[in-house]
Amino acid sequence: MNVAVLGPGLLGGSIALALKERGGHSVAIWARREESAREALQGGFADRASTEISTVVSGAEMVVLATPVGSMPDLAREAVRWIAPGTIVTDVGSVKSMVVRDLGPILDGHARFVGSHPMAGSEKTGMAAACARLFEGRPCIVTPLPETDPEAEQQVCGFWEMLGARVFRMTPEEHDARVALISHFPHLLAACLVNMAVDQDPAALDLCGPGFRDTTRVASGSPGMWVEILRSNGPAVKKSVEAMIEKLGETLRLLGSDCPEEHMHAFLTHAKAERDRLRLPK
Amino acid sequence: MNVAVLGPGLLGGSIALALKERGGHSVAIWARREESAREALQGGFADRASTEISTVVSGAEMVVLATPVGSMPDLAREAVRWIAPGTIVTDVGSVKSMVVRDLGPILDGHARFVGSHPMAGSEKTGMAAACARLFEGRPCIVTPLPETDPEAEQQVCGFWEMLGARVFRMTPEEHDARVALISHFPHLLAACLVNMAVDQDPAALDLCGPGFRDTTRVASGSPGMWVEILRSNGPAVKKSVEAMIEKLGETLRLLGSDCPEEHMHAFLTHAKAERDRLRLPK
Repeated sequence: MNVAVLGPGLLGGSIALALKERGGHSVAIWARREESAREALQGGFADRASTEISTVVSGAEMVVLATPVGSMPDLAREAVRWIAPGTIVTDVGSVKSMVVRDLGPILDGHARFVGSHPMAGSEKTGMAAACARLFEGRPCIVTPLPETDPEAEQQVCGFWEMLGARVFRMTPEEHDARVALISHFPHLLAACLVNMAVDQDPAALDLCGPGFRDTTRVASGSPGMWVEILRSNGPAVKKSVEAMIEKLGETLRLLGSDCPEEHMHAFLTHAKAERDRLRLPK
Repeated sequence: MNVAVLGPGLLGGSIALALKERGGHSVAIWARREESAREALQGGFADRASTEISTVVSGAEMVVLATPVGSMPDLAREAVRWIAPGTIVTDVGSVKSMVVRDLGPILDGHARFVGSHPMAGSEKTGMAAACARLFEGRPCIVTPLPETDPEAEQQVCGFWEMLGARVFRMTPEEHDARVALISHFPHLLAACLVNMAVDQDPAALDLCGPGFRDTTRVASGSPGMWVEILRSNGPAVKKSVEAMIEKLGETLRLLGSDCPEEHMHAFLTHAKAERDRLRLPK
């Protein structure tokens, strides 16, 4: 398959590497900067790499938008001028309602767009952090609309399955609500925890163990990328914030010396049981 | 040095392994169950292992209490009958005000007690998870009182330094306030996040990526151990809960469409900068 990957970041780079490792695919990468295009070629990520969208997408059977979500509409507007009619287009954006709403009108009628979101990020960014096995065993959410071409949907699902992902289909709205809970809000929560601890007593931070390291890992992610994600999915993230404030209020009662110890035990046991049964990446 | 380790868990087992690896030390382990004592011997953790405290602590120059904090007073009462006068006793408990207040009267006058807390836990428990390098580069907090024998304090600090830890000295109260912020409260927060997400939409949990895995890792810790820790340090943990509720309230404003994007950007940038400068275990 001829695949054009627009954006040589962690996800775009990993898609390219995974395709190259499987063999039998031709990969072209578009990068905004000449230097990144050169690195993509020299690093063996792609058969072709360029800053010209026209040369990257022409001949592509599948185009993957892998830039920050805010720059996808402009990129799609440029790409749609050069892609063959009926070309399948997908993206890797962390929010789906906004992306699907923005890209549909730009691409539909010419290309066939189906939104995707592989749950395989990292606090690291850029092609240097890319990994051919990034998607193996990871969930990838595909968000077709009622009017989405079934063959295009099938091909996008098959694409992610080929890269090793476990595909889940749901509406863009279901995606945004669920991913707010398990990705967007936890990111904000990690940032809150760091900022709260620093506010309360900066000297405490010298004592951090592996628990604090892991609980706050995602707070080291790119602020620019995450502002965009959090604000694009603002209402769903707010709902999680409110639910968490309520849950923390519950723990104030559980911590009270007048509350039987068994209540806190049940709270922690429930959390442990639910977490232990998750299918998590190694 | 002759060291007696009371409790063959993750921390006790790791102390024993670290001493054996360094060589020149004789290690005796006390376990509640015969089977654990046998495993400690067979696994090469100790030169002697027994369920009899008297045989384990007699001849010890240093005794380390490495059981859950709730069982330390009874253990100390039994041990003090058999240890030589002036023997140095320390512990690895995650709360210090309560432990120091409880153990001091039991041990003082006969032994020399100095509290410790190595910041090197894991969601895994038990001797099977022990590791000789668990303490290397990790903070270990030592909590002497004004009346603590300076030589005993020095020996306890030297003991942890020998195991590779970086020693911090502070009062038991400072310890509890700081460790609430970066360990006890984050543990409760991880449990809250799991429980909140399950309450809101259990199907969301199928989509978890590495971010949720890490943010919630500590929620897989032992509920029994953590109930004890959280409730023993209740007032300090409550203070963190309240500060976090306030911080989350701040994010509701930052997520508002009427709030300039730069404010959320500054919030996330601050968190990233503070986290990136932490000295964290690999």
